[in-house]
Amino acid sequence: MNEATPQQQQKILVVSAHPDPRSLNAALTDFAARHLRAAGHEVRVSDLYAMKWKATVDADDFPDHAADERLKVWAASERATLADRLSPDIAAEQEKVRWSDAVIFQFPLWWFSVPAILKGWIDRVFTSGFAYGPAVPPPYSEGVLAGRRALVSVTIGARESSFSDRGIHGRLTDVLHPVQHGLFWFTGMSPLEPFAVYGSHNLPEERFEAAKREYGRRLDGLFTDEPVPFRSLVGGDYDHGMRLLPGVEAEGTTGLELHTHPRG
Amino acid sequence: MNEATPQQQQKILVVSAHPDPRSLNAALTDFAARHLRAAGHEVRVSDLYAMKWKATVDADDFPDHAADERLKVWAASERATLADRLSPDIAAEQEKVRWSDAVIFQFPLWWFSVPAILKGWIDRVFTSGFAYGPAVPPPYSEGVLAGRRALVSVTIGARESSFSDRGIHGRLTDVLHPVQHGLFWFTGMSPLEPFAVYGSHNLPEERFEAAKREYGRRLDGLFTDEPVPFRSLVGGDYDHGMRLLPGVEAEGTTGLELHTHPRG
Repeated sequence: MNEATPQQQQKILVVSAHPDPRSLNAALTDFAARHLRAAGHEVRVSDLYAMKWKATVDADDFPDHAADERLKVWAASERATLADRLSPDIAAEQEKVRWSDAVIFQFPLWWFSVPAILKGWIDRVFTSGFAYGPAVPPPYSEGVLAGRRALVSVTIGARESSFSDRGIHGRLTDVLHPVQHGLFWFTGMSPLEPFAVYGSHNLPEERFEAAKREYGRRLDGLFTDEPVPFRSLVGGDYDHGMRLLPGVEAEGTTGLELHTHPRG
Repeated sequence: MNEATPQQQQKILVVSAHPDPRSLNAALTDFAARHLRAAGHEVRVSDLYAMKWKATVDADDFPDHAADERLKVWAASERATLADRLSPDIAAEQEKVRWSDAVIFQFPLWWFSVPAILKGWIDRVFTSGFAYGPAVPPPYSEGVLAGRRALVSVTIGARESSFSDRGIHGRLTDVLHPVQHGLFWFTGMSPLEPFAVYGSHNLPEERFEAAKREYGRRLDGLFTDEPVPFRSLVGGDYDHGMRLLPGVEAEGTTGLELHTHPRG
């Protein structure tokens, strides 16, 4: 390592969601862990299938919730979070997120979204009181998880063209908006552009090698690449109804692009 | 019923995803079933929590899959579908979808998407060979589920303004794009505009009554309201890379809006 520019050791949590340890997703998780450790970082992996992660939110998540009381999920999860009385599997994952300087999601794109087991990790771990809510800073700003980088690494069966600017599936960045903007940016994390491997149903060895090289470059830039320049809620761009103020955007901007600063 | 305009009896599947039978979502499911039955329709309800629906795709879904063989989910699910060898819980839900003339999803918006248990219903039920894939018509067209109406009925904690055209969360139609366009339209179904109840954490009785009246109107229009005018893949609008051809859209259209016909 170059002594003049010593790399800071960072902590990275990889959350991985594929049922088979021989899958492309498992290989990419393994590659990321090795690559980041070789660069001197600490890595923890939440392999959701291996952990038999419980995907569904229910009353068992909140041990103090009375069985005969109506379960208002939002209220019950906030109460349990603030009282430090969440089920142990959720508390353990929250501790990993708190520990981390960066979070990576590794998953196959199923129905234009994350697999259910990863959605269940999101639903159960990112409780009110932990990641958002009255007890923590406002969303889309210096939220409670601010300072953390976030990277989606996704495998996609379809061709890249179908997720391009004019591709029929929609731009990948728009399809992943609920994760990139709705989860990461909402909770204060800084999402990078997603890393995607297309044509993943049948990936020849040389394309797998090329994907690893490209992913390696993205991992090298995990703490230095420019994040997606989403707008902050508290920066003066929005009104009290959380609507973008008139005239803030570049002429002709519409849709989800409204909520990103124009790139320089 | 007016004999001059007898309403055709239709078959509706409601898929409902909330852990508490006393919830707003359960009440809306119950309301829809009663309302539609009162209009002479047949209704079946898949109450996913009550069914203890298994949310995660794994090798158990495909009884013929050899334990020592790598699980390629897409290939294994297609093989099992075409051989009529899916696990019985999946096959039962596919039968309900096939039976239906319309599908309604009733859910709380969790992290800008469906709850994990409903994502797991989508992931497991909409297999290749059933809803898409080489064995059935192309996606985004007269797909295998064509002719069916599809309606999202969603409860949302946030205010409506935050999901408006300039709202920070993104337009609801864009946030739900993976379901509306990616699932319903991809498989040939005709999605209607979503029905949403905002401010759902604490809904006063009079707003609940108003929501039911509005939902009743939407249910009355389930088979007659204009669906979202998404573009067909086979209508000549796209190239062989599934990209929208240049100049097809109205001037200034960008993002996900590209894939919808301009409204008249």
